[in-house]
Amino acid sequence: MATRSWWGWGTEEAAVRGAEAAALEDRVAALLPDADLTVHAPPALADLEVPDPQVTVPAALAHLAAADPPARVGHARGKAFRDVVRNLRGEIGPLPEAVLTPRDERELVDVLDWATGAGVAVIPYGGGSSVVGGVEPRLPGGDDRPAVTVSLAAMNAVTEIDEVSRLARIQGGIYGPALEDALRPAGLTLRHFPQSFEFSTLGGWLATRAGGHFATGPTHIDDLVAGMTVVGPAGVGRSLPLPGSGAGPSPDRLYLGSEGTLGIITEAWMRVRPRPRFRAGASVLFDSFPAAVAATRAVVQSGLAPANCRLLDPVEALLSAGRQTAGGVLVLGFESADHPVDEALARAVELCRDHGGTPEKADTAPTQAQSAEPGGDSAADTWRSSFLRMPYQRDALAARSMIVETFETACTWAGFESLHAAVTEAAYAALAEVGATGVLSCRFTHVYPDGPAPYYGIYAAGRWGETVGQWGRIKSAVSEALHSAGGTITHHHAVGRDHRPWYDRQRPAPFAAGLRAAKTALDPGGIMNPGVLLGP
Amino acid sequence: MATRSWWGWGTEEAAVRGAEAAALEDRVAALLPDADLTVHAPPALADLEVPDPQVTVPAALAHLAAADPPARVGHARGKAFRDVVRNLRGEIGPLPEAVLTPRDERELVDVLDWATGAGVAVIPYGGGSSVVGGVEPRLPGGDDRPAVTVSLAAMNAVTEIDEVSRLARIQGGIYGPALEDALRPAGLTLRHFPQSFEFSTLGGWLATRAGGHFATGPTHIDDLVAGMTVVGPAGVGRSLPLPGSGAGPSPDRLYLGSEGTLGIITEAWMRVRPRPRFRAGASVLFDSFPAAVAATRAVVQSGLAPANCRLLDPVEALLSAGRQTAGGVLVLGFESADHPVDEALARAVELCRDHGGTPEKADTAPTQAQSAEPGGDSAADTWRSSFLRMPYQRDALAARSMIVETFETACTWAGFESLHAAVTEAAYAALAEVGATGVLSCRFTHVYPDGPAPYYGIYAAGRWGETVGQWGRIKSAVSEALHSAGGTITHHHAVGRDHRPWYDRQRPAPFAAGLRAAKTALDPGGIMNPGVLLGP
Repeated sequence: MATRSWWGWGTEEAAVRGAEAAALEDRVAALLPDADLTVHAPPALADLEVPDPQVTVPAALAHLAAADPPARVGHARGKAFRDVVRNLRGEIGPLPEAVLTPRDERELVDVLDWATGAGVAVIPYGGGSSVVGGVEPRLPGGDDRPAVTVSLAAMNAVTEIDEVSRLARIQGGIYGPALEDALRPAGLTLRHFPQSFEFSTLGGWLATRAGGHFATGPTHIDDLVAGMTVVGPAGVGRSLPLPGSGAGPSPDRLYLGSEGTLGIITEAWMRVRPRPRFRAGASVLFDSFPAAVAATRAVVQSGLAPANCRLLDPVEALLSAGRQTAGGVLVLGFESADHPVDEALARAVELCRDHGGTPEKADTAPTQAQSAEPGGDSAADTWRSSFLRMPYQRDALAARSMIVETFETACTWAGFESLHAAVTEAAYAALAEVGATGVLSCRFTHVYPDGPAPYYGIYAAGRWGETVGQWGRIKSAVSEALHSAGGTITHHHAVGRDHRPWYDRQRPAPFAAGLRAAKTALDPGGIMNPGVLLGP
Repeated sequence: MATRSWWGWGTEEAAVRGAEAAALEDRVAALLPDADLTVHAPPALADLEVPDPQVTVPAALAHLAAADPPARVGHARGKAFRDVVRNLRGEIGPLPEAVLTPRDERELVDVLDWATGAGVAVIPYGGGSSVVGGVEPRLPGGDDRPAVTVSLAAMNAVTEIDEVSRLARIQGGIYGPALEDALRPAGLTLRHFPQSFEFSTLGGWLATRAGGHFATGPTHIDDLVAGMTVVGPAGVGRSLPLPGSGAGPSPDRLYLGSEGTLGIITEAWMRVRPRPRFRAGASVLFDSFPAAVAATRAVVQSGLAPANCRLLDPVEALLSAGRQTAGGVLVLGFESADHPVDEALARAVELCRDHGGTPEKADTAPTQAQSAEPGGDSAADTWRSSFLRMPYQRDALAARSMIVETFETACTWAGFESLHAAVTEAAYAALAEVGATGVLSCRFTHVYPDGPAPYYGIYAAGRWGETVGQWGRIKSAVSEALHSAGGTITHHHAVGRDHRPWYDRQRPAPFAAGLRAAKTALDPGGIMNPGVLLGP
């Protein structure tokens, strides 16, 4: 039985060590020879000074509550770079006074009723993988209410499968692997594989509008929902499972992206599909990044709808795919449960050639690494060993004084060039300002006919004890650049507490007023995740 | 210059007459030999008794206002069966006191400011094609405020085209044909062709979540919006044009389907596409309707994503495609601007054969009739002559004492059989109850992997002077059956005032509370389309 890491990603057993650690250090040293890669180990959880809880859960709910230090510290924050560094330094910050784990909707209603009456803030918690401060009891200034975490961990089953309609009724607290395990015997899959897949939940994906496996088409979890149940202080709301509807504004779309501020998504009818039987993939190399961007645009605007269409810039290609190129690599993959997809791939490759691309041999490692789902074949192993290792490697780098951060956005194709220039300029200026040497990489995780979703990575050598401050200034500068260039402050990482300054400026003011009013109606006590999306 | 009909669909010049009228009467007589098809002509508009307007528009807005009887009567209702019959009988009902037509957002703000201050209700008006009482000044009981219509007719341009991102910035008041005309020189198209295309507007499509041309994939206008501007009593809100975003609940999705109750959609960045160059289509006949349904499901679940995938039951096949079948006809069409689609069609036809279907010769008339856009080729002529004629023929039938109504819904595939049985039973029971002989037809206008959007037609011989009452009882009985069987009360016709009883029960109660609160924040005076979606 693996032990969840209290301070970093995933399980303690899976943390980076041994040969993987040595290889990682070698890669960093090659890129940043002056980096001080001394390892700073996390304190033992037992050595942390944990204040006594300030809230006594009533007897009727006591059997759902845990208030021991491991439970409280383990649920105190998400997995942002800042969270991990502070944990490594033993700075545990605000803690939930207790973790309550209701087992069904009735118990959740009871918990919310108690919290509303007692004036206790509620932090909804799925897998705890937030990188935007979405799951921590960091209340807005002036709000000194105590907070408890409400975990969906006990509502974690696939309760019904409708094979005719290809729908599955799934509880919000289920983790990715358990969800896929439950669908597999029916030959079905949700095919939603965010990088956090192993340690995030369906409810979390829905509440944060997660982006998944598919690079084109229905990539946001939003498009995979047929109906859902939300439990909030104002009661239980169930929308009908429907393939489509034009009856007023979509009820589900109000809760998708509501990040626990309006209620907790306890279950959803999800659109599932048969597991793919046909696959074809290729990697295409480019001599110029603008040409690679133009080729990617041509492919996604062709209507071919590849499952995978991820563009890596030269830095990203080198770091994550081991490919040296002047212009980047476009990783293409098609899949179907019904029909061969070789012709579609051939046409996509032809479009790339029209834009100066040169395909590598088909079905090379990068294709498999990014297009395969976790499961029982060799592609899955490759996928696990790269994509799923990244958060663990981020933690290992954070322990070695590195600053590692990602920025993800979406913009129009016409707006990409100027956004890219602005982000690049802002990132390197911020690195210089904080005295950190590093690199910026870019990939497109998702692409649409009207624009890409660029995903930037920053890897820089920081100074131990200062990396959170350095990170904060970089984060702020790049976020400002994204926003000013017309990009969204987040394509799929959500808003949480950390993206508020830009989100507040991005959303239309009347919409903000409407959302605030809806929040007041649905959560009259203002107990649900205070500080996220709304409030001072 | 054609004259818009004050009483019925479209233009006076295009109304059914001569040979078309004779052919229509012959078809009805063959089906319903006892029907009394005496023509009841509409009164002349000049002969109607129009009460004087009760509102004086202030001088500063007078240049935007029309209060003459043709303007007021012409904007008094939509184009539901009931609307047309009442017009034919000279029962003009509540009228707007004036029709205001602002030319830009600033003028619209001024109009709404005046209306809020003066306590005048505002009925937003695009093309006036509502079939659910969405555009009439029928205020809830007890609300005796005067009402004015605010028409978007003067905000009707395509103002910007971004060919790189395939986006077009389009004002809300533009009609379908003008929109396509403006995109055509750039080789682009919105490819959104609701049946109302000629006489409905982009703003109306957005406000009502219209369903368009495509039978699968992005059929609802919702999916074609990158960003939009909404002007309401609380101010002007602009969302960024974005290909995707995960920043909080989608602002656009709150306004999509809001039916003028939260504000008026003045412009939107729409996702456009190149005009198709490759097409392939086929019609497949079936001996059994359940087999045809199973085949349709197999096609839409295959991932082939046909542009057209419309199933006609035997009655519908006979009435609208002239095909005598025991099980119905599936009309399939594929299209692309980039690559041939013959293989996709071949695979879809193969799936149909697996379910007992027999394809007719490819590219037969029904395919073209339903898949082609209006434009300069022969398919367009066919399309105009059938699909676009239907509303005119409905009016001609209404003038001949026929009861003609459509019901459209969506449900899961697993739920369709029982929904279909319930609707069929309820429809024939209601026809018997009101003493009208008629038939029920069914087609799928749109299909999704998780379910179809069934569209029912009722054609029955009514009694002149009683058809509105007969219609009302049928409408109510079938709507009740749809709702009880788990279908949505509307897939793309919207809620308006007529679908309220079922919509109110369909939507989750907490969502209704949130929407009501948002409405209060965005429209503090409650002037926007009172009685639609919300209120008593």
